[in-house]
This record gives sequence, structure tokens and C-alpha cells, in this order.
Amino acid sequence: MLYVNDLSLNIPETTKPRVVIIGGGFGGVNLAKNLSGKDFQIVMFDRQNYNGFWPMLYQVATAGLEPDAIAEPFRKMFDNGEDFHFRLVKITGVNPVTRTITTLIGELQYDYLVIATGTKSNFFGNESIKKFAFPLKRIPDALNLRSQLFQAFEQASLIRDEPLRQSMLNVVIAGAGPTGVELAGALAEMREHVLPGDYRGLDFEKMNIYLVEGNNRVLPLMSPESGSWSQQFLEKKGIIVKLGTRVEDYDGELARLSTGEEIPTQTLIWSAGVTGALIDGVPAESIENGRILVDQFNQVQGLPNIFAIGDIALMKSKKYPKGLPGVAQPAIQQGKHLAGNLARLLRRKPLKPFNYFNKGTLAVIGRNGAVGDLPGKLHLKGFFAWITWLFVHIYYLVGFRNKLVVFSNWIYRFFTYQRSNRLIIRPFVRQEDKAGQEFIRRYQED
Amino acid sequence: MLYVNDLSLNIPETTKPRVVIIGGGFGGVNLAKNLSGKDFQIVMFDRQNYNGFWPMLYQVATAGLEPDAIAEPFRKMFDNGEDFHFRLVKITGVNPVTRTITTLIGELQYDYLVIATGTKSNFFGNESIKKFAFPLKRIPDALNLRSQLFQAFEQASLIRDEPLRQSMLNVVIAGAGPTGVELAGALAEMREHVLPGDYRGLDFEKMNIYLVEGNNRVLPLMSPESGSWSQQFLEKKGIIVKLGTRVEDYDGELARLSTGEEIPTQTLIWSAGVTGALIDGVPAESIENGRILVDQFNQVQGLPNIFAIGDIALMKSKKYPKGLPGVAQPAIQQGKHLAGNLARLLRRKPLKPFNYFNKGTLAVIGRNGAVGDLPGKLHLKGFFAWITWLFVHIYYLVGFRNKLVVFSNWIYRFFTYQRSNRLIIRPFVRQEDKAGQEFIRRYQED
Repeated sequence: MLYVNDLSLNIPETTKPRVVIIGGGFGGVNLAKNLSGKDFQIVMFDRQNYNGFWPMLYQVATAGLEPDAIAEPFRKMFDNGEDFHFRLVKITGVNPVTRTITTLIGELQYDYLVIATGTKSNFFGNESIKKFAFPLKRIPDALNLRSQLFQAFEQASLIRDEPLRQSMLNVVIAGAGPTGVELAGALAEMREHVLPGDYRGLDFEKMNIYLVEGNNRVLPLMSPESGSWSQQFLEKKGIIVKLGTRVEDYDGELARLSTGEEIPTQTLIWSAGVTGALIDGVPAESIENGRILVDQFNQVQGLPNIFAIGDIALMKSKKYPKGLPGVAQPAIQQGKHLAGNLARLLRRKPLKPFNYFNKGTLAVIGRNGAVGDLPGKLHLKGFFAWITWLFVHIYYLVGFRNKLVVFSNWIYRFFTYQRSNRLIIRPFVRQEDKAGQEFIRRYQED
Repeated sequence: MLYVNDLSLNIPETTKPRVVIIGGGFGGVNLAKNLSGKDFQIVMFDRQNYNGFWPMLYQVATAGLEPDAIAEPFRKMFDNGEDFHFRLVKITGVNPVTRTITTLIGELQYDYLVIATGTKSNFFGNESIKKFAFPLKRIPDALNLRSQLFQAFEQASLIRDEPLRQSMLNVVIAGAGPTGVELAGALAEMREHVLPGDYRGLDFEKMNIYLVEGNNRVLPLMSPESGSWSQQFLEKKGIIVKLGTRVEDYDGELARLSTGEEIPTQTLIWSAGVTGALIDGVPAESIENGRILVDQFNQVQGLPNIFAIGDIALMKSKKYPKGLPGVAQPAIQQGKHLAGNLARLLRRKPLKPFNYFNKGTLAVIGRNGAVGDLPGKLHLKGFFAWITWLFVHIYYLVGFRNKLVVFSNWIYRFFTYQRSNRLIIRPFVRQEDKAGQEFIRRYQED
């Protein structure tokens, strides 16, 4: 057993300024990689022991990739990092006055604090949706969803009751951002190429994939061109797209839409929104719409030596009055940029303001199908966009081996349509009372 | 929600004889692959939706491979199988009189029943060991163990209390059969090449790996030569081998040995024994030492049209008076052989007796280190044995892609010593009250 009083953060004393980084996402990792252990002691906190390439997470959920292909342990990533310390502990608060962060294990003084906690799923206060829906933010979410999808098909092949079987075959995706769209595309491919061979007792004509989006177009953050092209592509693949519609409630059985329509489904996938993963101790005046206001140097308004980068940071500019898009690039660029600024601080040099270099946005909708908005109103579509997406993402994937595995997986899948990772490893369902859990408990366990 | 009365096995009626196979291990899969869907309707039951290459399971537990590299879904394996039906349901009993098997969902009549349920961990009735030890029989076990190992190191780096930290660094392996030996070797390699870089705050000189075996040599089922060579190899790698010793009790904190010695450890790995996974309804007189007595045709004594193959079957012969070894080869060969005999039955031809062709036994102890007993008292050792082991196992691994992934993993690991899959994906610990669970709950969860 562990008792709090047995525990200590065990961070060695140091004469160097200590940089504490909360969160090991795109921002935190790129910061840590570009800080010198000669100048700073670097302490990173996260509640997972790995960094993940989250744009590919939907691939794990749809049995295209195993988790290790898109994730790398921090301790492997930084195993040569001088004076770098990772701790798998949750941060409970920050005290800007005493310059300490608090954890359940103990406190730690910082010289510079970088908040890079990113976002978490936003259920807009609906506890029932939070309880029964499947989010897609972290690897356990993706494995949860993967097991749920295939469990539902296994169960459907055991069901006599027609309406119940239909609810096993219905998948509702709330939110048509990149995650929702990419997920819908991958599911449509599975339905076309994999599932009919797997479950020959089931009629996959009856499998409905609903994509429900509150805005008036899919991929609302991309260009109208990309949005409408994607919608056509998805509808051609038989996905039921419902725009201007929100999922308003879900009890694990029935999804109620804002139009009043009710869809019976065992699987509601929640990609309808995120909110900043805030930390206690950041004063309210520094927060706007759940994100932390920062200046052009990523400094938090009015909090000396505290910085925020990535999705959690709200950096307004003339070009981006509502802040930067919540994608990987701003986080990566801010992480690298802040590393330079911290070095400048150390050398008493003036800080350089951050300028976002927009490399464009890509979304993949399926085999041969992707859209891209590149700088200068250039839009990519179809196969070429798909190839571009493929190489950009593999390029950014962390770790040589991961790239290799992902790439060989892609090549293999492209020619075979196979999705090999259809293992129901365990009942990853989130609620004791969910059908899958019940099913596993009653029909499988020893 | 699922209710039993909603459910039905949904197996189509047929005029062909129906072969019901319980268990999709080496035996069941090789039988099904060699039966013709033109002659028979084939129904396979398992409580997992995949077939696994279990000799490589220890690789998953030690972060060398991801589950998908050693497992393949039945529905992928048999997606071209004519009149083949897989059902993910537990069998609750067999009734030889009415020729039915019963499940929680419903009954099914069989013409031929093949019991291929294999074995399960044997805790020799010790409930406390069963509750706290980590077995290694199935993929969830391996992921459990993987998470436990790395959680223990994360926790150890947060611990002030010296004895408690030591208990996090101690690993006790009960049983020095192939699984125990291969695990010990893999852990020793991690300790040497991976962990010191990962956890620089920890002193891995202090990490003790105990291998506890009740018999008077390691690999008791292999030749004395192989056993003693392996023991030397393991001890050279710093593994503490205790022969003629059993783990008699474990409370999650302290492992008590038959010598009276007590080892504080958070991780007791149980590979000390298996017992047949029996099914209710098989009469006692057909059972010996937890296995089902079969004749040379794999027919169960006194039960017409019921066969048993693989580990669950006890087939005595002059050469093997105690039955065949509990390894993959007899199961594979019996599965193929029984397929032929069932076809002969159909054509009213006499059955052919099964003869086991011993291809030899191999065990790998680590990089460059393996032992093999080949027919004709030929013994392999060291690098050559390792290469042999490598290719034999990759050859037998199911699925083209799996072979590819495993092979590239091996090549990569051989040159880099890396083990990439060190992800603590979730608290896979088995008990609410285990330290890891507590740790995750208190220090990581939202």
C-alpha cells in the first residue's frame, strides 16, 4: 500500500533555475526538448507516462493502429535529457505568490512555471452524456471505444430482438470537427470492407453512422470549400450527416437530438467540444472561455514567471482575434519559441514575441480522401491531399520506430483494407451498468 | 441493456453434421482450419474474440510487443471460412446424452463436440495468491503485468520510505518453466539496458529478480543439460534462482516461501502451474489430474462423438505414459489430425490413430541466449538456439502482418535494446485495494 506520508516528489535540490512544466503534450514536450539541462533543471508532470500523437488517436479507436504506434513514454523520449525529471503525478494547484505548485504528494518551488495542460472533453454540464458517451481524448478512451464497437457487433450477432440489434448497429458521432469526420470516415470503411466479412450473420446495410454537428457545416474550423467537399465525400460513403443539430441528451440507450429526433444507440462518440484543463490557483481575471490569457511572450497576464502554451493558452492577435486554432502546430511552435525566450530571460536579453506560422490544416476522411487548407487560400482535395496528410503526419509522429510501424501499417492497410487490431482485450466500457460490461460479466468471465 | 431472453446463439439450421469446437487455441484453430465447410457446419466458441500466440505472451508483459503482434481475431482468421460460425460466449456445460452444449444464452445440439479449452492458472487453492499475484495466461494478464511493472517503478521514484521502495523494486517469479524463465530473462535485460536510463533517480542495483522453482532445476520439462545451462545463463544475468522452493503465500505485500524466507514485493508473477479448463458435464471417470482422458483418436473415454485435443486432453502412450507435453505442437498436430478423422467418420472410413511428432522444445532466456532439446538428444545452446527460436516462433505466428511486425520489432530491438511499449495505459491492476490502483486513483485521475 501507498500512504501519502511515504511519498515525496524526490526532486533533487539545484542552483539552476527550475522550470516546472505541467503537461507533456505537443507544447510541453517541444519546450522540454529545446531547453538546455545545463541552464535549467527541468521538471515535467503528467498524469500519463507517455506523449501521444493525438491526431492519429481515431486510428487506435478504429483498430487501425495499436497505442504504441502513436505514443512514446516520456522516459524514453528524454532518457538522455540532462537534469530532466518526469513525475507521474496530478497537480492540484499553483500558488503564484509563494511560487509553488502543489500535488497530493507534496509541494515544489518553481522559478518558471509553464502550464501546458491542453484541453479535456467538454460535456457542457450534461452528467448523463458524460457518464454514457465515449470521448476520444486519451488512449484509454480509444481502447474503450474500440472494444465497445466490436463488443457491440459480437452482441448484435447474438440478439434476437430486432430493435435492440439495431441499437447495437447504430453509431452516433457528436461533433464534426477533424476527430468526428476522420472517425466517421474510418467507420464507413470498416463497414464497407471489414465488417461484412467478419460478421456474416449481420446485415451491415442496417449499420447507420450518424455525424451530428451543431454548426451549419462539417469541419467548421476549415474553409467552406473543404467543409462542403468533405460532406459530399462522407455522404457518398453513406454517412448520415446532420448539420445545425446537437446531441442534447443520452442515457446509454437513446440519443436525443436538438431536433427532437431520437436515435437508439449503444455507442455515442463524443467529439463535440473541449475545454481548457485549468489548474486551481490561476486567478479568474487571467481566464477567458476556459483558457488562460497570455501575451505575445506566452506570459500569463499579471502572473510573473508563469507561462501558458498550446491549447490551454489564449493568445489574441490582430490576425487571430479569438486566439490561435486549437491544433498541434501552435503548441509545437510555442513550445520551441518559449524555450528560446527562457534562455533569453536567463541571459537578461529581451524576449521575442511569438508569431504563429500557419502551415495549414489537413483532415483525412478515408482511403484516398482528405482535405487541406494551405496558406494563401490554397485548398487540397482527394488523393493528393490524402498523400500529403499521410506524410505530414508520419513525419511528425514521434520516434523512429513509431514512424516505421505506422507507415508499414498504412501501406499494408492501403492494399489489403485490413484492420488487424480488432481485439476486444477487455471490457473497456466505462460503466458497470453498460450493456458491454454486463455482457462480458455474464457471458465471458470465469 | 441486454437481457438473456433477448439473446439467441443464432446458429443457422443445417443438414450437414455440426462440429462444435469449444476453445480457439492452437488445437481448436488448427482443427477448424482443416475442416471443410462443405462437409460440416463449424461452430467455434471462445471467451476471447482472438487467437493468440501464447509462447510470445511474455513479450507483451515486458513491453517488447503490443498485443496485436501476437494475436489475431477469429473473425479475421476465418473470414472466408464456409459455414463457419464464431460466438463470443462462455460454455456452461455439456450434456452427452442429449448431445447439447449449454451456454447462458441458450443450448446448441452437436453432432461432434471437440473440447479444446486448454488450461488455466492453477493457484493450488490459495485464494490470497489468486487475488494478489499476476498470472500470465491471457492478453489482459500481460497488459496487467506490464502496467504493474512500470507503475511500480513510477511509484518507487516517488517513495521516501526505503523498505517500501525496495518492495517496489523486487519482482518474484513463481515457477521456472518456459514462461518464468523467459520472463526472468526479459526483465534482466530491461534492468540492464532500459530502466537505468528511464528512471535515473532509482538504483537498479537494488532491483532483485527472484525465480522460484519447486523442482530441483529450471525448465524441469526440458533436458538436464538445457536446465543447467539456462540456470547459469540466468544467474550470470543476476537473477536469483531458488530451486526446490515454492511460493506458499502472498498478501500483496510479502511473498512467503516454503523455506520460510519472506520477500517483500509488490509484484508476484504466477507461472507456477496450470490446470485443465474443464467443462461441467464431463463425467469424473473421464478425468485424470484435471485433464480429459482420450484414446489414440482423441475420443473421450465412453463419450460418443466427443473429442478433446491439446492441453486439456490426456493422451497416454508407451512413449508418453504421463501424456503429451503441454506445449503448442501436440495441440497443433492433434487439431489437424482430428480434422482428418472427422472427414473419415463422415465417409465411414476407419479412424487413424494420432502419433505425436516431437519437433523439439525451445526456450529463450534473453538476447543471444536460448536452449533447445531436439529429437535425438540433440541440444542447442546460446546464439544459434536463439536464432532458431526466433525463426521458429515467427514462422508459427499467425498472420502475415503479425510476422512482419514481430520481426521488425525484433530486428529493431536487437540493435537498439529498446522496448518501446512501456505505456501505462491504465491501472490494469486486478484489485481495487492494490497499491497501483490506489496510486492511480489518488494521484492521477481527474
